[in-house]
Amino acid sequence: MKKETLVRLLAEVQQGLLTPEAACGQLTHLPYEDAGFVKIDHHRSLRNGMPEVIFAGGKTVEQVAEIFARMAKPGVNVLATHASAEMFAAVAQMVPAAEYHAVARILLLRQQEDEPQGRVAVLCAGTSDLPVAEEAAVSAEVLGAEVERIFDVGVAGLHRLLAQRELLRTAQAVVVCAGMEGALPSVVGGLVSVPVIAVPTSVGYGASFSGVAALLGMLNSCSPNVTVVNIDNGFGAGYVATLIARAAAVGRTV
Amino acid sequence: MKKETLVRLLAEVQQGLLTPEAACGQLTHLPYEDAGFVKIDHHRSLRNGMPEVIFAGGKTVEQVAEIFARMAKPGVNVLATHASAEMFAAVAQMVPAAEYHAVARILLLRQQEDEPQGRVAVLCAGTSDLPVAEEAAVSAEVLGAEVERIFDVGVAGLHRLLAQRELLRTAQAVVVCAGMEGALPSVVGGLVSVPVIAVPTSVGYGASFSGVAALLGMLNSCSPNVTVVNIDNGFGAGYVATLIARAAAVGRTV
Amino acid sequence: MKKETLVRLLAEVQQGLLTPEAACGQLTHLPYEDAGFVKIDHHRSLRNGMPEVIFAGGKTVEQVAEIFARMAKPGVNVLATHASAEMFAAVAQMVPAAEYHAVARILLLRQQEDEPQGRVAVLCAGTSDLPVAEEAAVSAEVLGAEVERIFDVGVAGLHRLLAQRELLRTAQAVVVCAGMEGALPSVVGGLVSVPVIAVPTSVGYGASFSGVAALLGMLNSCSPNVTVVNIDNGFGAGYVATLIARAAAVGRTV
Amino acid sequence: MKKETLVRLLAEVQQGLLTPEAACGQLTHLPYEDAGFVKIDHHRSLRNGMPEVIFAGGKTVEQVAEIFARMAKPGVNVLATHASAEMFAAVAQMVPAAEYHAVARILLLRQQEDEPQGRVAVLCAGTSDLPVAEEAAVSAEVLGAEVERIFDVGVAGLHRLLAQRELLRTAQAVVVCAGMEGALPSVVGGLVSVPVIAVPTSVGYGASFSGVAALLGMLNSCSPNVTVVNIDNGFGAGYVATLIARAAAVGRTV
Amino acid sequence: MKKETLVRLLAEVQQGLLTPEAACGQLTHLPYEDAGFVKIDHHRSLRNGMPEVIFAGGKTVEQVAEIFARMAKPGVNVLATHASAEMFAAVAQMVPAAEYHAVARILLLRQQEDEPQGRVAVLCAGTSDLPVAEEAAVSAEVLGAEVERIFDVGVAGLHRLLAQRELLRTAQAVVVCAGMEGALPSVVGGLVSVPVIAVPTSVGYGASFSGVAALLGMLNSCSPNVTVVNIDNGFGAGYVATLIARAAAVGRTV
Amino acid sequence: MKKETLVRLLAEVQQGLLTPEAACGQLTHLPYEDAGFVKIDHHRSLRNGMPEVIFAGGKTVEQVAEIFARMAKPGVNVLATHASAEMFAAVAQMVPAAEYHAVARILLLRQQEDEPQGRVAVLCAGTSDLPVAEEAAVSAEVLGAEVERIFDVGVAGLHRLLAQRELLRTAQAVVVCAGMEGALPSVVGGLVSVPVIAVPTSVGYGASFSGVAALLGMLNSCSPNVTVVNIDNGFGAGYVATLIARAAAVGRTV
Amino acid sequence: MKKETLVRLLAEVQQGLLTPEAACGQLTHLPYEDAGFVKIDHHRSLRNGMPEVIFAGGKTVEQVAEIFARMAKPGVNVLATHASAEMFAAVAQMVPAAEYHAVARILLLRQQEDEPQGRVAVLCAGTSDLPVAEEAAVSAEVLGAEVERIFDVGVAGLHRLLAQRELLRTAQAVVVCAGMEGALPSVVGGLVSVPVIAVPTSVGYGASFSGVAALLGMLNSCSPNVTVVNIDNGFGAGYVATLIARAAAVGRTV
Amino acid sequence: MKKETLVRLLAEVQQGLLTPEAACGQLTHLPYEDAGFVKIDHHRSLRNGMPEVIFAGGKTVEQVAEIFARMAKPGVNVLATHASAEMFAAVAQMVPAAEYHAVARILLLRQQEDEPQGRVAVLCAGTSDLPVAEEAAVSAEVLGAEVERIFDVGVAGLHRLLAQRELLRTAQAVVVCAGMEGALPSVVGGLVSVPVIAVPTSVGYGASFSGVAALLGMLNSCSPNVTVVNIDNGFGAGYVATLIARAAAVGRTV
Repeated sequence: MKKETLVRLLAEVQQGLLTPEAACGQLTHLPYEDAGFVKIDHHRSLRNGMPEVIFAGGKTVEQVAEIFARMAKPGVNVLATHASAEMFAAVAQMVPAAEYHAVARILLLRQQEDEPQGRVAVLCAGTSDLPVAEEAAVSAEVLGAEVERIFDVGVAGLHRLLAQRELLRTAQAVVVCAGMEGALPSVVGGLVSVPVIAVPTSVGYGASFSGVAALLGMLNSCSPNVTVVNIDNGFGAGYVATLIARAAAVGRTV
Repeated sequence: MKKETLVRLLAEVQQGLLTPEAACGQLTHLPYEDAGFVKIDHHRSLRNGMPEVIFAGGKTVEQVAEIFARMAKPGVNVLATHASAEMFAAVAQMVPAAEYHAVARILLLRQQEDEPQGRVAVLCAGTSDLPVAEEAAVSAEVLGAEVERIFDVGVAGLHRLLAQRELLRTAQAVVVCAGMEGALPSVVGGLVSVPVIAVPTSVGYGASFSGVAALLGMLNSCSPNVTVVNIDNGFGAGYVATLIARAAAVGRTV
Repeated sequence: MKKETLVRLLAEVQQGLLTPEAACGQLTHLPYEDAGFVKIDHHRSLRNGMPEVIFAGGKTVEQVAEIFARMAKPGVNVLATHASAEMFAAVAQMVPAAEYHAVARILLLRQQEDEPQGRVAVLCAGTSDLPVAEEAAVSAEVLGAEVERIFDVGVAGLHRLLAQRELLRTAQAVVVCAGMEGALPSVVGGLVSVPVIAVPTSVGYGASFSGVAALLGMLNSCSPNVTVVNIDNGFGAGYVATLIARAAAVGRTV
Repeated sequence: MKKETLVRLLAEVQQGLLTPEAACGQLTHLPYEDAGFVKIDHHRSLRNGMPEVIFAGGKTVEQVAEIFARMAKPGVNVLATHASAEMFAAVAQMVPAAEYHAVARILLLRQQEDEPQGRVAVLCAGTSDLPVAEEAAVSAEVLGAEVERIFDVGVAGLHRLLAQRELLRTAQAVVVCAGMEGALPSVVGGLVSVPVIAVPTSVGYGASFSGVAALLGMLNSCSPNVTVVNIDNGFGAGYVATLIARAAAVGRTV
Repeated sequence: MKKETLVRLLAEVQQGLLTPEAACGQLTHLPYEDAGFVKIDHHRSLRNGMPEVIFAGGKTVEQVAEIFARMAKPGVNVLATHASAEMFAAVAQMVPAAEYHAVARILLLRQQEDEPQGRVAVLCAGTSDLPVAEEAAVSAEVLGAEVERIFDVGVAGLHRLLAQRELLRTAQAVVVCAGMEGALPSVVGGLVSVPVIAVPTSVGYGASFSGVAALLGMLNSCSPNVTVVNIDNGFGAGYVATLIARAAAVGRTV
Repeated sequence: MKKETLVRLLAEVQQGLLTPEAACGQLTHLPYEDAGFVKIDHHRSLRNGMPEVIFAGGKTVEQVAEIFARMAKPGVNVLATHASAEMFAAVAQMVPAAEYHAVARILLLRQQEDEPQGRVAVLCAGTSDLPVAEEAAVSAEVLGAEVERIFDVGVAGLHRLLAQRELLRTAQAVVVCAGMEGALPSVVGGLVSVPVIAVPTSVGYGASFSGVAALLGMLNSCSPNVTVVNIDNGFGAGYVATLIARAAAVGRTV
Repeated sequence: MKKETLVRLLAEVQQGLLTPEAACGQLTHLPYEDAGFVKIDHHRSLRNGMPEVIFAGGKTVEQVAEIFARMAKPGVNVLATHASAEMFAAVAQMVPAAEYHAVARILLLRQQEDEPQGRVAVLCAGTSDLPVAEEAAVSAEVLGAEVERIFDVGVAGLHRLLAQRELLRTAQAVVVCAGMEGALPSVVGGLVSVPVIAVPTSVGYGASFSGVAALLGMLNSCSPNVTVVNIDNGFGAGYVATLIARAAAVGRTV
Repeated sequence: MKKETLVRLLAEVQQGLLTPEAACGQLTHLPYEDAGFVKIDHHRSLRNGMPEVIFAGGKTVEQVAEIFARMAKPGVNVLATHASAEMFAAVAQMVPAAEYHAVARILLLRQQEDEPQGRVAVLCAGTSDLPVAEEAAVSAEVLGAEVERIFDVGVAGLHRLLAQRELLRTAQAVVVCAGMEGALPSVVGGLVSVPVIAVPTSVGYGASFSGVAALLGMLNSCSPNVTVVNIDNGFGAGYVATLIARAAAVGRTV
């Protein structure tokens, strides 16, 4: 949506030439905001109530700051993943209310705060998996779920996991982050009956091949309730787990 | 659970030494039926209401028939994936009510029939993906979901998919099967706001590497609502989609 | 061509011992200029009207500067790809008219300016793909095509691409750059009937394997008008697209 | 397009309620023919004058026959690649005019015969590459190009290729098929100034990895006019080469 | 050792020209029996009391039979792995006492029977892993260990494994066979304090890549007592486990 | 184990309400110490007499220091692998008695010193493999074995290895570290009759693929007494070799 | 060379219009015989005295027979590798003097018999490597070298190899074939001072990946006199070894 | 060889107890000098007249300096590959006569200077391949061959190579270095009849995978006189080429 279009539209509302309902309808059909190097899609948040999301990896600091600021304007929540401290500094100058979760590498702006709905458990196998697990947990919280963190419960010391079994079973969706052999999702998948989103992490060395070993393990899980996202994709796992848990909590008629 | 144990337990119930409730409690804690070469886990169906499932690949015809027959005894639904026509013949002799879906390579016994709950859409990119898509669809149906099949809607002829947009949006979970470049889940993920379970298929040749190209494409999907299962794993996708759709349809309190 | 040979040849022209036509013939058959560590092939630009091109990657700053300066001497356009700012500084001292496109990492000297012929559309899926898309676009412009940039039209938000459909169809050749799942070329291939040159980019993380996921996706495209170049090879794509579009625009008799 | 819709439309034309022009317009917008397990896209041939194409790999004999017969109805040319002799037998019963090119594994129906336009050269490195080279050549011929075959000109005996240099330069687009080290496209790319479509073939053994070695070699070609298609994808190469050569021969205004 | 040499040696013993002790010394230094296409190493069994072992894979039926018969002559135990039923038939004609374990694909001749020493547990994750697990178990038995089989205890149904915990802890070395995600060795490694030999099996499909997923998972095990052998190498695992268990049982002074 | 629990337990012992034996029993069943981001498992050292081990890779300096200090409290030996000099500095402030083996990258605290039992030989192929070989050797020493180092005995100069044959045969378990082609374990495996733990190292370049070549070589060893650990996993090899050698030296009844 | 050209040429020689020397010169410059689907290069044998060679893999029986017969005409030796028994039958009908080496899969015609020059040793690690080793040995013999076969000398039983050390040192070039871990060339490379041509074989299973493990091992050999050819390429190794040994035996002035 | 042994030996020579010939014999059988972390093998230079060679990669500066100095003592030539400028500085302090070839990354000490024998041509495809080509060329020179450098003759501009054909044919062995598609060795292999040692270089980007594309291309070369060494292994290629050329030049009787 070009700026002139927006200005004209709002002017018409102001002048009473257009009812707010009609304007809303038009905005819903205007596909996106064309900022030259980027086309910002305000639709998504309107359509499904999710915040705007930026994948900051591979973008320049200036690009991230400009996109973040534009996305923030309509008053919605904004989330940038794979964000550096330097990006945070640049964004904070334009959007002072922005927060930065350093461990999760998430840049965040909360402008709408709803009651969390649906309960997501986020597990990780070891302390080294924390950044990915936190990316999942923070994402799920921002997206509107209640999050239970269950960390450092790798399969080589099974009693640590088994001790959390009851807590685990209160979740409507489970995210499991693990590097190295990536065996945790299969074990967790056998303990719960809700969907398990497995996140391979790049933790390990040698034949872990930066997370490939864990990825393959998870894709071959013998627990049928396990699905997989990309290596280190904590955000994606948190996103899908929230979709599942919220729908289970509030129901979703078709 | 050894046979003697079971016999003794039932005898005690018969003699009034044990109430049915107590016996049930014991059975729930008795872990499994030990058939020598296989340990049949009757728990799973008790725990989450899902049917018993056999992965027939790599098993002998005799093993599949024996496991199927044992699993069928308690009166639950039984499902065997990757099953050959020869296995069906062997099973049918022991369990005459068993059915065989040749395209989906699924061996099936329905002993309990519930009203389907939750709505799953199963899409595939081309006619060659049909076996995997049918495995997902049949699995979801047996597991208790209502299934909408939307086949042959590959991305190279986008209008075929766009024409099904409304139908697609009635589902609470979506399964998308695609081989070759595996691009369909990303496109579908942008059209719906529910979870999309992507199934790479081994359809293709050359640099498709028996489904690896599609698998990688799906793992790297830029649509955040996409998660992935193993190549050709229609069953797993149907299973998770059903979990999601049913929970959304009936709610799931924690 | 050794320096002495060239000097002798030109002296003969000067003295009237050789007509310019004859000298031209000789030059066309003299294979190349031997600068010791490099053999500069002045033929290519004579043969097909394309500028001289240097792949600066893996060469030292000094080598690039010397090759660039030598190539520039005959008055043709010169293009160096994968060039650093440091290389530009060194070249600019020897060839002050040289320009540098920092985003595209292209070093450029325009000494001949022709009317552009043929129309090339350059698309990219996301903002992170910009460097590669700009390499393609700048290359195509220097090589003599008119270029239309259509950026940030990834498949997860299809309406952004569909809104550009008409513009897209004015091109005689299309370059599509995409990382991650690399699905855009297949979708674009279905919307146009001209050749699509797909460029996988190394944008992504984890199972994108620095562009391999996108590369495989593109090689397996179900759109038959898609061909592929190396990961991040914007230059190659721009080069071939220009060859195609120019031949379509001006015809090419055999 | 459902059958009823078509019947009604044609009835209206017959009754004079609809002009043929208007009917044509409607047909152009009706997206496809829905045959249950397959959605036949009659658009493509209308849009770009290309024949209908079926990828027969992974389809059953019955599916191929039914799709072929349906596609053949509107009187256009039809092409099925990766087709077996058994498929030909099934098709021939329904479409007696169909032909079979056993070496190229192409099933073909010619119902429209236009003057060939544009000239495509198809080269292969060795006799073992013949099936792929023939697939490219036959495809290009059916698609409307004049084809020059230059076979068995591998780089280890360079004089065989150099002897064909003049012939080679008469083409407006070149297809080069090679297995093993896949070096031929680079060498050919240096000898011509038109686009070269490289087709890696699965010819070889050991570290050829069924064509991967050739594929990688071609993707890394140092000749900038080389683009690549999938391993053994002779059809795709013939398709794109024809698009290029025809546009060069007849021009293509935008 | 050429036949003549052996004959002469024995003759000298017979004639009293050589004491048995001296002959034994000579035999220990004679390196091997040269049968033309194969050099049979009688040393190994003399040196470490292990039976002679033949890897039958890639050998012809005739070669296996001839090698087996030669190895059997000195009265030791002989073991051939990867042996087909056809090989058994050929061997049985020459060595009637040979046995065949069809599931384990092991051809066996027991000529020496010692009391088993050391206790090896052999586990497998699922019924499909049986052939490899049996190869390990039969090998360990022939090599002189007492073997406990604990089968079908995959991690998705953890209670089946936990129920065997006590039994498991009686072993001095543990072999764990698993395909698919290969998670079982890590879990078992956490439950016992003796060495665990992990055997990835080729059970699975798609991204199991014929056992690579399981192999990588096992190499990255977070349990430090896990080491790994080749995919499907049940024999190797049984061999090493027996070495470990026997040394632990009988002690091994240095 | 929460702090309060521990305090209460010890108070009860002090007050005579609990015998030491009973307290010990309870402690053995209390699963672990929950430090928020990490769950410290004091069990392992109690169960098998091995020291506590930290994989420092991927953890922050602060995390390593805190975990190390907590683990040190019960007076056991503590070992951290993949530890940097910076981590040592942080740990040394909290645990002054900690030592650092820079070559092996091991952080170490010895609080219990037992007589070494069992003899482990550690070999490496070249000087570049030293860091991994030292990691194995230092680990084995800390874990309680006597260690013989035999370094720089690569297979290209066989006489260097053969000269150590006698020394080699005194070990009850052998660790062999090698990069590049990784052939040394096979050769050593033929010279000894005890288990050989092979450690591929990332030494090499080009087609060594950071240790993959050596890893594959070792997995395919034709010596049946060879098992393999992850690339550069000197610690794991030293751990398992110590388990084997100690059990052989002191016997292990079941 | 077209047939007419050849006929005319020979006629002129017959009629005394052309001396044999002149005809020979012309023939040397006529590039090849164009048989339609194949271009037979009679040059090679004239230029370097080597026989004509056909790679029969991927060619039809008819193609092999026709090429073989044409190559045989000038009276030179002809060699076809990767040849089946069926091909031999077809060739024998046209060229009765042809021989077939079944183990080596070589089809052979000897029409010139020279005294062998230069001595090549061919080694293999195990009996399963025999087909490749025989391909190398037979090739070297046909190409004119004296061949010493030293088979079944794998590194796990080093004394078998060391016993052949003196014999090995009489060769001017060495071919070493090995599958599995492929360690033999490195060991042999340390024992001799002439070039060693390493041939990885596809013998093995699991992580041998059809010869990739052996290939990588050989490429990373720490013996500097080792070079490598493709997996199972016995012919190539025999060819190069013969070039080296013959040049060493007879000298080669430049 | 321990220092004491050497001292005692020399003392005996001095005292006339041992003739120099006898001492020499002993030294030849003393296997190596044991410097603790490294075993220096003085044999190799004695045995085959080649200089001592150090692979400096992965060694510390101190280790390289110490090994270099020790190797230099007997007065032979010493060569260190993969050597940094920092290593040169350290070596130069201990061995002032050492030289450094920065492009080739070779550290060198010439203490014996023989007349070069045998002629090696070293080719490279592009300027970026220079470091590897220089490593080969410098190595061959030090090892005693006469070297002809033919650089920047990539296959995309074939006339540059063809112009050097005569020069090329004067060599007794040829080294060809190429990155990207690695096609040059196949083309050169067809132009010469001596062995060609192909060296893949890591030059390129994207799907060159740091030299893998070139490596695979070379392994699959259709020229039978091509063998291959590791990626970037200029030294190995120069070494083997020198062995071949010298033997051809001076003959080598067996």
